[in-house]
Amino acid sequence: TTSSSSFTTISKKASSVPKMPFPEGDSESDGSKLFDWLIHPFSTNKFFSAIWERKPLLIRRHIPQYADGLFSTNELNRILTECNVRFSVNLDVTTYQNGCRETHNEEGRAFAPVVWDYYKNGCSVRIKNPQAFSKPVWKLCSTLQEHFKSMVGANIYLTPAGFQGFAPHYDDIEAFVLQLEGKKQWSLYNPRSKNETLPRFSSGNFSESEIGSEIFSTTLEAGDLLYFPRGFIHQAKSLPDSHSLHITISTYQRNTWGDLIQELVTGALSKAIAEDLEFRKGLPLDYLSSLGVQNSDKDTPRRREMMKKIRDLMGRLQDHIDADAAADQRGVEFLHDSLPPALSQDEKSRTIHGANVRMVAPGRPSAWLCDITINTRIRIVRKNAVRLFAHNDGDANDNAGVRVYHSTQNSRTYHEEEKKFFEIEGDCALAVESLIHSYPSYVTVATLPLNSDEEKLNVATSLFEKGIIMMEEKVKMMKRTG
Amino acid sequence: TTSSSSFTTISKKASSVPKMPFPEGDSESDGSKLFDWLIHPFSTNKFFSAIWERKPLLIRRHIPQYADGLFSTNELNRILTECNVRFSVNLDVTTYQNGCRETHNEEGRAFAPVVWDYYKNGCSVRIKNPQAFSKPVWKLCSTLQEHFKSMVGANIYLTPAGFQGFAPHYDDIEAFVLQLEGKKQWSLYNPRSKNETLPRFSSGNFSESEIGSEIFSTTLEAGDLLYFPRGFIHQAKSLPDSHSLHITISTYQRNTWGDLIQELVTGALSKAIAEDLEFRKGLPLDYLSSLGVQNSDKDTPRRREMMKKIRDLMGRLQDHIDADAAADQRGVEFLHDSLPPALSQDEKSRTIHGANVRMVAPGRPSAWLCDITINTRIRIVRKNAVRLFAHNDGDANDNAGVRVYHSTQNSRTYHEEEKKFFEIEGDCALAVESLIHSYPSYVTVATLPLNSDEEKLNVATSLFEKGIIMMEEKVKMMKRTG
Amino acid sequence: TTSSSSFTTISKKASSVPKMPFPEGDSESDGSKLFDWLIHPFSTNKFFSAIWERKPLLIRRHIPQYADGLFSTNELNRILTECNVRFSVNLDVTTYQNGCRETHNEEGRAFAPVVWDYYKNGCSVRIKNPQAFSKPVWKLCSTLQEHFKSMVGANIYLTPAGFQGFAPHYDDIEAFVLQLEGKKQWSLYNPRSKNETLPRFSSGNFSESEIGSEIFSTTLEAGDLLYFPRGFIHQAKSLPDSHSLHITISTYQRNTWGDLIQELVTGALSKAIAEDLEFRKGLPLDYLSSLGVQNSDKDTPRRREMMKKIRDLMGRLQDHIDADAAADQRGVEFLHDSLPPALSQDEKSRTIHGANVRMVAPGRPSAWLCDITINTRIRIVRKNAVRLFAHNDGDANDNAGVRVYHSTQNSRTYHEEEKKFFEIEGDCALAVESLIHSYPSYVTVATLPLNSDEEKLNVATSLFEKGIIMMEEKVKMMKRTG
Amino acid sequence: TTSSSSFTTISKKASSVPKMPFPEGDSESDGSKLFDWLIHPFSTNKFFSAIWERKPLLIRRHIPQYADGLFSTNELNRILTECNVRFSVNLDVTTYQNGCRETHNEEGRAFAPVVWDYYKNGCSVRIKNPQAFSKPVWKLCSTLQEHFKSMVGANIYLTPAGFQGFAPHYDDIEAFVLQLEGKKQWSLYNPRSKNETLPRFSSGNFSESEIGSEIFSTTLEAGDLLYFPRGFIHQAKSLPDSHSLHITISTYQRNTWGDLIQELVTGALSKAIAEDLEFRKGLPLDYLSSLGVQNSDKDTPRRREMMKKIRDLMGRLQDHIDADAAADQRGVEFLHDSLPPALSQDEKSRTIHGANVRMVAPGRPSAWLCDITINTRIRIVRKNAVRLFAHNDGDANDNAGVRVYHSTQNSRTYHEEEKKFFEIEGDCALAVESLIHSYPSYVTVATLPLNSDEEKLNVATSLFEKGIIMMEEKVKMMKRTG
Repeated sequence: TTSSSSFTTISKKASSVPKMPFPEGDSESDGSKLFDWLIHPFSTNKFFSAIWERKPLLIRRHIPQYADGLFSTNELNRILTECNVRFSVNLDVTTYQNGCRETHNEEGRAFAPVVWDYYKNGCSVRIKNPQAFSKPVWKLCSTLQEHFKSMVGANIYLTPAGFQGFAPHYDDIEAFVLQLEGKKQWSLYNPRSKNETLPRFSSGNFSESEIGSEIFSTTLEAGDLLYFPRGFIHQAKSLPDSHSLHITISTYQRNTWGDLIQELVTGALSKAIAEDLEFRKGLPLDYLSSLGVQNSDKDTPRRREMMKKIRDLMGRLQDHIDADAAADQRGVEFLHDSLPPALSQDEKSRTIHGANVRMVAPGRPSAWLCDITINTRIRIVRKNAVRLFAHNDGDANDNAGVRVYHSTQNSRTYHEEEKKFFEIEGDCALAVESLIHSYPSYVTVATLPLNSDEEKLNVATSLFEKGIIMMEEKVKMMKRTG
Repeated sequence: TTSSSSFTTISKKASSVPKMPFPEGDSESDGSKLFDWLIHPFSTNKFFSAIWERKPLLIRRHIPQYADGLFSTNELNRILTECNVRFSVNLDVTTYQNGCRETHNEEGRAFAPVVWDYYKNGCSVRIKNPQAFSKPVWKLCSTLQEHFKSMVGANIYLTPAGFQGFAPHYDDIEAFVLQLEGKKQWSLYNPRSKNETLPRFSSGNFSESEIGSEIFSTTLEAGDLLYFPRGFIHQAKSLPDSHSLHITISTYQRNTWGDLIQELVTGALSKAIAEDLEFRKGLPLDYLSSLGVQNSDKDTPRRREMMKKIRDLMGRLQDHIDADAAADQRGVEFLHDSLPPALSQDEKSRTIHGANVRMVAPGRPSAWLCDITINTRIRIVRKNAVRLFAHNDGDANDNAGVRVYHSTQNSRTYHEEEKKFFEIEGDCALAVESLIHSYPSYVTVATLPLNSDEEKLNVATSLFEKGIIMMEEKVKMMKRTG
Repeated sequence: TTSSSSFTTISKKASSVPKMPFPEGDSESDGSKLFDWLIHPFSTNKFFSAIWERKPLLIRRHIPQYADGLFSTNELNRILTECNVRFSVNLDVTTYQNGCRETHNEEGRAFAPVVWDYYKNGCSVRIKNPQAFSKPVWKLCSTLQEHFKSMVGANIYLTPAGFQGFAPHYDDIEAFVLQLEGKKQWSLYNPRSKNETLPRFSSGNFSESEIGSEIFSTTLEAGDLLYFPRGFIHQAKSLPDSHSLHITISTYQRNTWGDLIQELVTGALSKAIAEDLEFRKGLPLDYLSSLGVQNSDKDTPRRREMMKKIRDLMGRLQDHIDADAAADQRGVEFLHDSLPPALSQDEKSRTIHGANVRMVAPGRPSAWLCDITINTRIRIVRKNAVRLFAHNDGDANDNAGVRVYHSTQNSRTYHEEEKKFFEIEGDCALAVESLIHSYPSYVTVATLPLNSDEEKLNVATSLFEKGIIMMEEKVKMMKRTG
Repeated sequence: TTSSSSFTTISKKASSVPKMPFPEGDSESDGSKLFDWLIHPFSTNKFFSAIWERKPLLIRRHIPQYADGLFSTNELNRILTECNVRFSVNLDVTTYQNGCRETHNEEGRAFAPVVWDYYKNGCSVRIKNPQAFSKPVWKLCSTLQEHFKSMVGANIYLTPAGFQGFAPHYDDIEAFVLQLEGKKQWSLYNPRSKNETLPRFSSGNFSESEIGSEIFSTTLEAGDLLYFPRGFIHQAKSLPDSHSLHITISTYQRNTWGDLIQELVTGALSKAIAEDLEFRKGLPLDYLSSLGVQNSDKDTPRRREMMKKIRDLMGRLQDHIDADAAADQRGVEFLHDSLPPALSQDEKSRTIHGANVRMVAPGRPSAWLCDITINTRIRIVRKNAVRLFAHNDGDANDNAGVRVYHSTQNSRTYHEEEKKFFEIEGDCALAVESLIHSYPSYVTVATLPLNSDEEKLNVATSLFEKGIIMMEEKVKMMKRTG
């Protein structure tokens, strides 16, 4: 490993080539192993302690086939041929030449020959939501999501030999650039100021004169990975002798302490005003003549007294902080942003997706119930696909309710579906909570902390029918007895 | 054929069973043949001269397998298992018992066992947009659309034995009820008044006391068809011994002369005011004291004179009518409402969908151009999938433009896509017009009424790349020469 | 009188100077006399038959004091000093120099010294709503409104010697320019095309090269009047030796036959569709292939047949025309646009405004009722301040109602108040109608066409309390007896 | 003075009757003296230390004429006769009988006889914005506003003998009820809970069973004052032998520490995120599994660590507090809510209102400039009518500007005008600040902290022309020399 102050490089050929790990069942562990693979042979611990949000990391693996099976130009061609890929919505055709960045999108569907003709004429192609078209990319992103607990997205970039498709700029996400085919020459530049370090919003396009001197320049080859934090300006061009295809995996967009604190203070202030009389007392008659820019040069006892009172109240605000409510607010947004779980065939066969109703004759289903008993062993489908949320919705009697939010019925297209949730009663909430905490273990329905078997079966059935839980065994179908 | 004044019945077993006709290429002719089949053995001419928009028609075919292959409970089970069918959006679960109509929809996806459990408990199931999930239904509707030149939709209704799912009501569409499985007993009632004859909007649910005496009641069996015009109140229940599955094909929603006239007068008045000084002249000083309810009892010469002037101007309005513009306005809306063409595999192979780019190596397409030459024989994909539209968009110089609207990239889900169109220049518009009029014949690119071969190839390529035209031969791929 | 084809001039010194006529009681007659005075010594009949909406008219009166008392720079100074005149809202400060038109408005109130300083520096001053600040201007406009039965507005323009405040342009109103002080040199130009003859919207500012050659140029002196129809381009500048003050009285903005027809056809089509089955019948299956630009070259029998059908339906539309409803719709808008009546002190003493409640002690009104008996003689306050309106508001039972709209509580500021109306029952509507038609005569309450004295008194009291009627005698106050 | 725990009563006849004090020039001192008078003979210091926001105070003055000249039924009658008082907008007619609260408003203007007729029939009358119609009420409120530095409003209530107009309820303002004529019996009740102590929003109408037992009941006579804090439920009815007229003066609506803190935290968080990298750093991967209701029972080191981090960041938030910006934000809202200063004739003569332009002839102002020299002695018109505000408006270069907000051009009708302000440059801001701080002293223009006499005169003239400053001497008019 080579580590300069401003970036780190590791170049090592693995003795044996690790395969992209196949999810094995515990989603957080699967996510973690997949991340290990992504930055292999760098270590995850070292990554989060020394690199993450700090500086770029270049990993040369010398194994061109490292990410085989994830995506390819052949796969792109298949998608363009078979799927309704639309210009601007799903795909951009761009050039960056002589400092000029242009988009060449047409209207409507991007049929394969049209896209390839642009490509043959020097245009770069960006697929904006490959998760929606490619199952391996979906699986990659949704599994990493279980690692990051923040939305994981992806873009695919294809550039013909000898071209550049985008102007220098910085993004508002943590970027993992995985080279899939060919080569691309990358140049990276430090954030231009403290203000632009870990920025909350992406930059516009920069001219060469605006980006400072580069911190390093390197050529990525297939199998290599380049990570850089949000705020690092970058640009990349293919070499004269090779096209380039890479995927950029992105995460941690506006997922900061500030975002949590924002949820927190809004709630805390409402609670403080409702609960603490001090916040409802009138301001002193002279506050406007002690505070304000026009009084900011004063250093009177009265002004100091008010400043002190303000600090006291800010301090009291702490007493009304509800960190759990704030985290849940964000957790619910995360579930809405999330990709749905990419279930394997085996997994599907153990969820509602595996429920195959048998029809014995037209209009006559003979087995249409999923066999859930008190002994059925169940767990939630993914550690981070469900969240409890206590709310207090404009009810005169201040009755609070609990909702179960989940991502299991999300679309692979961002926010195509509304937030998915359903209300449950307090007792049932504890049952759901116990399922969340017992993950990844399977537990019998009987162990749910509810009073009667009927209640236990009701909760289990209800969660199963939403696609939120899976059984340890394949779903068996039955007819209603009696 | 039995024909009473208020409805017509035909009951005849065909000597040979006509198969649902396979589209052969000329879309209007295909649509017409499909409609023949739908009302077989009744005749299409007689239908439109004596039945359409006038009275119900009952066709007993005594051939249970008449519509085999269109839809079935088995197919419904497959769809529920494989597709993201959502409660309320795509599917309703309903009951009508003791005069009370209820909907039992849950939130989110309607998984098969859940739906079948409702069904087993006496609920009816309505699939609201089966075209989106079933290819035969899509093909049926999009082919009939070529016959009606008005959006054709469909609903599927499944009712367990001994139940009714919906309250008596009337609709705002022409309804063709095709029994697919089992039996259902239908009751029909005349429109309650002249006002509710051919109504523009559907009714709410009626109680039994509101619907008058029935004009007939009959039991539909598989293969039978029942047609009734909008405004006819109806209700249906399955028999104790059999479930019922039928499809209702609907068309002609607000597709009336009044709708055309509405487009017409709006345009005519704008033109009259712009072009005819009489419309811009001031009203006489005394018009408010000659007209109005408070003056309606008067019969003065002055009032008569104004009434005459108004009639004269209404007459002059006729001079500014642009029936073509009004029809095109509606034509464009029709294209937006339309289902996209359901192309057969053979047809696809002769359109841009059949363009298979060959990749010789990663990043290297070797044949990515569709071989269109001056001798390629082409036609538009469907008679009614394209429309020219002359517009005049807020251009200071009053420059009008021509747009080509098309339905070839529509979604199978209603209005999921925006209106699809592109601008062309005047000369090219003539070329598109010639293609529209030469349909269903194939013509060579050379015959397009344009000045140069380059222009002809440009127009043909452009239309081909939007999916608007098909070749007579399979698409051949080539690389750009030179 | 000198009359060229393009404009008419009259130059005659009246033997005796007619005073601006004082309203005498019959509002239409008052309006008519005031208009006589405005264009004196030209005749009103000749004006409306030969000049109105046709060509400019210049009236030289050689009587500088002709309009004395209407408005003056002194009055302007008083208004700026006493009233809350706000820049941009009520007043503009402008220059037009070297082809460049500029506005120099500040924010907030336009205090007198600030405005006069601009004026002293060459700026023109426009008062945009002088009716709101000047009682004579209010009286002039509201009286002329009774003549035109269309909103009458006014602007005041003050220009220092040797300057021009506005660029050449045309307006969308009929303009009567009455010179009040000093002199101004006017240039007029013909409408540039048929399209810009009697235009519906004002032009932007023109450059000198855009306005054609002038039809005449003249210098208005105090007491002179210049009329020109909408669409005539004009510009004016003061002379080096004199400032200029004039008022422009405007009327007939979008008050054309076309506007009436617009109301008419909208209503007629709704009625036709509701009442005439022909309008609700479906369009023929082939209408889209017979009509439209792409079919406009065809001359098939089918196309001719459809064209004929369209003309027939357009003809039938005539059967559903409700000219009275359309006129009332416009009448109601006119009432909303109207200035409120400018009542004289004597008139006020005979309306609710003259009701002086006597207080005998704190909290003890001793006479608080207006003495209206069956013998009280009443009339509406102005011929055109009230209008009956039959409506049909979303009532399932198609119950129509009648409203009395009125302008008596309008603000002197345009649309500052909502439309003013109240509902009445059918019988009472006839009573209001009889009052409208008996105007300007006073009638006793007893003559109202109602069944009982109580009803008659109720209607009379109700109208009186809204300020809609006046008595022939001064209001007498009484206490409730019994 | 009698003071129980829950309310305080003072009953003392003053030896000499204090007149309502006439504003003398220093607006805060004027406000303070007026408040002394309002609660006389109670002391202001004692009021704010023991009563304000704590408990009701009843002051019996035994001087019926104490508030003479402020408002009377006679004045109400004059206002109804002369002003455009509109039902619902400015006046409500109400009853409260048998537990039923009704409003009897008509549409449009409330003419005097109509209102008195309702009154004679037992209705109460509420004038909602008497400041707009009554000059003494305006003066009272705008002067008290200088004391409270929070909007001061007023309502007038007139009730005929033996009636009650309103149901029991509590308000969201501090209320000073000053009896003007007759008598009224008041009942007060404690806030029902801690939550309803100093509430932020008024209650709806209560039934008798909802309001608890009264803390006291008393009869107010003319000259008496009753104060009670927001949240105290109250109701009042007139006695059988006397009508009642009182004014309720209200202030401190949502003017609490909580409101200031709200402004504060919003700003602080924005600044913290922009300036402090800690707030922009990503959340830890496990925060969602340590926080949230589903994890709230855990007490893990990790959870404690995060809680600590949150508290640390909340603490750091303090470093980014800008109390001056928050106070200015509220100060600007206060100026928008404010009544405009009620200037005396003498004061007007020393402001732009006293600038009488002399016209020597039509169109010829001879003296149109206000004589402001370097020696003119000036001050702002009211201590609390102006405020500096530093803003930072969407400027790419982060350039901040300074605005002068003022209430001098507000309307007497709440929020009828937009916020009034103008931009100034940094140097000039210091000049305005010096004027604010030197108030109530007059200072010469020469003392403004600016570099040149020209700048000083410019600032002074500009402020003078907005009506923000007054001179020590009457305004003198001059013509421009040279």
